[in-house]
Amino acid sequence: MPLQEKLLIQRIRRAAGAVAKRGKGIGDDCAVLELPRGHEALITTDFSLEGVHFRREWHPADSVGHRCLARGLSDIAAMGGVPQAAFLSLALPLELGQRWVDGFVAGFLKLANRFSIKLTGGDSAQSPDGVLADIVVLGSVPAGQAVLRSGARPGHLVYVTGTLGSSVDTLNQLRDGRKLSPKAYPKHFYPEPRLAVGQYLREKKLASAMIDISDGLSTDLGHICEESHTGAVVEADALPAIAGKEGLKLALHGGEEYELLFTAPPNRRVPKKIVGIPITRIGETTRGRTMKVVLPNGKTEALKPGGWQHFD
Amino acid sequence: MPLQEKLLIQRIRRAAGAVAKRGKGIGDDCAVLELPRGHEALITTDFSLEGVHFRREWHPADSVGHRCLARGLSDIAAMGGVPQAAFLSLALPLELGQRWVDGFVAGFLKLANRFSIKLTGGDSAQSPDGVLADIVVLGSVPAGQAVLRSGARPGHLVYVTGTLGSSVDTLNQLRDGRKLSPKAYPKHFYPEPRLAVGQYLREKKLASAMIDISDGLSTDLGHICEESHTGAVVEADALPAIAGKEGLKLALHGGEEYELLFTAPPNRRVPKKIVGIPITRIGETTRGRTMKVVLPNGKTEALKPGGWQHFD
Repeated sequence: MPLQEKLLIQRIRRAAGAVAKRGKGIGDDCAVLELPRGHEALITTDFSLEGVHFRREWHPADSVGHRCLARGLSDIAAMGGVPQAAFLSLALPLELGQRWVDGFVAGFLKLANRFSIKLTGGDSAQSPDGVLADIVVLGSVPAGQAVLRSGARPGHLVYVTGTLGSSVDTLNQLRDGRKLSPKAYPKHFYPEPRLAVGQYLREKKLASAMIDISDGLSTDLGHICEESHTGAVVEADALPAIAGKEGLKLALHGGEEYELLFTAPPNRRVPKKIVGIPITRIGETTRGRTMKVVLPNGKTEALKPGGWQHFD
Repeated sequence: MPLQEKLLIQRIRRAAGAVAKRGKGIGDDCAVLELPRGHEALITTDFSLEGVHFRREWHPADSVGHRCLARGLSDIAAMGGVPQAAFLSLALPLELGQRWVDGFVAGFLKLANRFSIKLTGGDSAQSPDGVLADIVVLGSVPAGQAVLRSGARPGHLVYVTGTLGSSVDTLNQLRDGRKLSPKAYPKHFYPEPRLAVGQYLREKKLASAMIDISDGLSTDLGHICEESHTGAVVEADALPAIAGKEGLKLALHGGEEYELLFTAPPNRRVPKKIVGIPITRIGETTRGRTMKVVLPNGKTEALKPGGWQHFD
């Protein structure tokens, strides 16, 4: 392997603390991990590709590292799972500076440490073009208790965590050429995977179906409806949308939110806040197979999946 | 997501049989998998990047798909593990034809089917440049029985499966501009992960340390020595090298072999063949921390890790 790549990787390993921890799985062909007794494995993989999922001129390195891991953790959250370990495949262009790599690793590990998960393995390569990352998160969940997309029944109520629309709103400002301070726009640059909320909903058996909003509410609610064989109606006035004339559109179709969208049977009492995160009821599932939205003017329209398409 | 990407992905899913199998994990945020009782999880991730690990003008699509999965399966083999499921993150350039994708999927699934493992999930994206694949294989092994790199002790015997050198020999011919029929050079185009051999060695408790030869014998033996705190001496005459004046060099340093390299205590009888694959004793581990090779002329030289560097 070329010297510079080797140095980059050594730096990543050192930063991740992997070299210091010899033995089981570290520096081996595979990582070896014991899952909690009676748990099933959850696995998710997500690309973070330069020019597709981020731009180096828009996103500081620590934000790219944070968002890379957040994508995987959010998928674990959406199953009600507990993250156990992360694996990072990272291909870097040779011209990339060490400072960028350090920033990426710092952002990645800061989030990993907050959820007490280790960077346990991965792969590295020289990239032919741009930064290419693929994050794998292994999680676990008590056997048979993962919250799937397929558990909603007609008449269940639809809920969402947090607020909707600000991630794409920030992206639109970046597209318009605005210079933004990343710390002032955390929903886009440092999104928070809703792990504690997902685990709470699973433990209390409140959620009948769940997904994270990565492709936009309209698209991801469509996934729940498809897998659960239901329709849904959403009340626009109920959405926790950001302010502004674009607010409703961004709340319905904006992606990369990493909020949880879930359904619950009508007889279950869902708290207004879970671990400090606001929970908003936004509609219900229906017997038909179509999605509808009741607009602020009282009119009902078809709601078509029209979600997030990254940067195209 | 752009229409063409969507169509490509639907085709992959259909080919993989994923769409037909609704329910647990399929079409969900994570795959949900139950490991055999008393087993630990093995996880490995490996990039297959166009221009780094393969070239579209050299490697037919089904070979790229086969090699992509073989990289992951070989890591499971090197732990003595049983593969359980594969996850594929695949980014494709928009101009890529459907025929190439079909070929990739066919090569991937043919190998997967032979080992009865399912393509259970993954991610997809539009690639900014070239085909980008990252394979994740989840395997399992009875708790505490994974064969690590760190178990060799001074005086253990060193063994290797199959033959060495032909994968890079084939690559050198491709580099020289030769047109080759892939089926005639299976060690390079369709390498065979040594899963049954790895499992046999683990079950019979024959191997004290094990690794697959992906970076070349000299580099990968170096990994065993480093993790086991030993040195090693290799007898050049004993190597199952391919013929030709480059044979010894290719056997010592050529990569992408996917053969297993393992050590065994001297009192264990290692068969000359395991499930039909020849096993060759090539040297032993030593108390010093250096690696040496005894050349055919009887002279002993230092053996430096000088392995495989992909296509640079």
